[in-house]
Amino acid sequence: MLPTEVLEKAQSELTNWQGSGMSVMEVSHRGKPFVACAASAEQRLRNLLNIPDNYHVLFLQGGATGQFSAIPMNLTSPGDTVTYLNTGQWSAKAIKAAKAQDLNVEVLADEKQSNYSTVPAAGSYTIPAQARYLHYTPNETIGGVTFDYVPDTGGIPLIADCSSMILSRPMDISQYALIYAGAQKNLGPAGLTVVIVREDLTGKARPTTPDILDYAAMAAADSMLNTPPTFGIYLLDLVLAWVEKMGGVEAMEQRNRAKAEALYSFIDNHEFYANPVAINARSQMNVPFTLANPDLDKTFLAEAEQAGLTNLAGHRSVGGMRASIYNAMGQDGVDALIGFMTTFADNHA
Amino acid sequence: MLPTEVLEKAQSELTNWQGSGMSVMEVSHRGKPFVACAASAEQRLRNLLNIPDNYHVLFLQGGATGQFSAIPMNLTSPGDTVTYLNTGQWSAKAIKAAKAQDLNVEVLADEKQSNYSTVPAAGSYTIPAQARYLHYTPNETIGGVTFDYVPDTGGIPLIADCSSMILSRPMDISQYALIYAGAQKNLGPAGLTVVIVREDLTGKARPTTPDILDYAAMAAADSMLNTPPTFGIYLLDLVLAWVEKMGGVEAMEQRNRAKAEALYSFIDNHEFYANPVAINARSQMNVPFTLANPDLDKTFLAEAEQAGLTNLAGHRSVGGMRASIYNAMGQDGVDALIGFMTTFADNHA
Repeated sequence: MLPTEVLEKAQSELTNWQGSGMSVMEVSHRGKPFVACAASAEQRLRNLLNIPDNYHVLFLQGGATGQFSAIPMNLTSPGDTVTYLNTGQWSAKAIKAAKAQDLNVEVLADEKQSNYSTVPAAGSYTIPAQARYLHYTPNETIGGVTFDYVPDTGGIPLIADCSSMILSRPMDISQYALIYAGAQKNLGPAGLTVVIVREDLTGKARPTTPDILDYAAMAAADSMLNTPPTFGIYLLDLVLAWVEKMGGVEAMEQRNRAKAEALYSFIDNHEFYANPVAINARSQMNVPFTLANPDLDKTFLAEAEQAGLTNLAGHRSVGGMRASIYNAMGQDGVDALIGFMTTFADNHA
Repeated sequence: MLPTEVLEKAQSELTNWQGSGMSVMEVSHRGKPFVACAASAEQRLRNLLNIPDNYHVLFLQGGATGQFSAIPMNLTSPGDTVTYLNTGQWSAKAIKAAKAQDLNVEVLADEKQSNYSTVPAAGSYTIPAQARYLHYTPNETIGGVTFDYVPDTGGIPLIADCSSMILSRPMDISQYALIYAGAQKNLGPAGLTVVIVREDLTGKARPTTPDILDYAAMAAADSMLNTPPTFGIYLLDLVLAWVEKMGGVEAMEQRNRAKAEALYSFIDNHEFYANPVAINARSQMNVPFTLANPDLDKTFLAEAEQAGLTNLAGHRSVGGMRASIYNAMGQDGVDALIGFMTTFADNHA
């Protein structure tokens, strides 16, 4: 979901960007107008997240999945020890990709026993001193599970897949060595990946690292070592301008908290619906829920779509329902969902 | 450059795609409408290029630059011999990336002696029997150099970077093991990469190959192993529909030949301008040219831009001018350029 006003602005200038007579998709990525657009997106992101000067902001391609491989390629040598927390499907994919890179991969916590409805308690795991980094997933998109704390690594580089929570609330970037995010949740369209990495960690990539995933090479080229996904960067700039106008990440957090509280409260107070996630680990972005009678799942989805409520199917791997209430969704969207769920329960109880 | 009618259609439905009330950028990439859109793009491409059934068509990210690394990662083991023809800057980048993958890289022909204004003659180089493939660049975007033949490899897999010539004319895909193209020339927007690869060559990638660049993994997932660049695929489908309507690649070739002949003929017959490329190697897509007096270069570019003729600066590495006359440019665009060049020469001779 993208903010309506962002889409409308993109629409209005799709064939004539900045009076150029051309689409932003047609201008040269090395021309002044587009270079200024990319610089604007970077500066807005730096301002919104208060990114320290010793961090690179990179605009890459390949999504979080690309970063699952890029992180070990850039930050380790074969045989190194790396550590991961496994809180769900996205953590598991990152772990699997790391294992392909000739590493000693230690999974310090695995929430399997709770069917991935919990996060490991702070202090419940110990990071070996030789670990090159600890990787975790602050928000698991599919499971709807969120860490309610930032792991204290005692100086070992902390890496976070922020795809489904970036810009949803303030973060202290200096606590992290590297964060990354596919754009398609809170930042813009699919096909753009944002990486924010502390400069001193870059420049030691394995020689076989593809240039498009090499942080130092990309940083040296201002993310334009090859043709960047120009339309995605342009839309990112528009989305970030919208976040600024809305009051920044603090305002986003308030708005997101209110949306999530309304939805969880409704679910918890209605015996027709249930959310499986531990209270302290509930996501403000992704709210999975089940019906008391799963035979009604298909009916629920069909009637929801008729009511204009789309994208409510749970991930194909887990079934059930999932409401993704990213930044671009307003309280009205959540209210409409609750209204529909109320009516549906009344009709089918 | 994109066809005007493609941009206008994208604009008209940017906020409401197929009556969904949502942008194509907002719908789920696993939902039926988008899956159908991606399948349509693939089928149109298969029809237009007459792609045999035993070839995968993949929609990836990372551009040609990503493929420079992906090709050796997918098709070789360390120590293997691979061969390249060097006809300019894009060939050279592909060669450099291959050298990083622990290979015996043999450059069978290097057109350095002509300052990369020629292509090696057919039969002038011998491919060693143990070569895993021969890689070449049918059209060098920066140098404006095109092969006037398809190398005969005697059965050794032939790989072609078709970024700046795909869909500009018919190709016999069965002559190739693999072709690839960044979308931003003739296919659509930056951020989408098309790979067409013979199935039997896939499935033997090095274990460290990132999933996003692993042909077999991507083919098994219909290019949706991770979130694909949805907007790029959607635009590709629109562009391919336009090529169909224009009469297919045969019609494109006629149109492109007429455009190129008009421009080369003008340049050759005007002492104010010159093109450095050997006659048999001249590109129908990229026409570099110089002014007899290079002191006028900046004036030329400034006056051209005032006349609405943009993107005429030569690549920053070579200077001079370059007219890129991709599929989306009509004869009127070339006529306007020639008209401007005539006036400019008259005013400054």
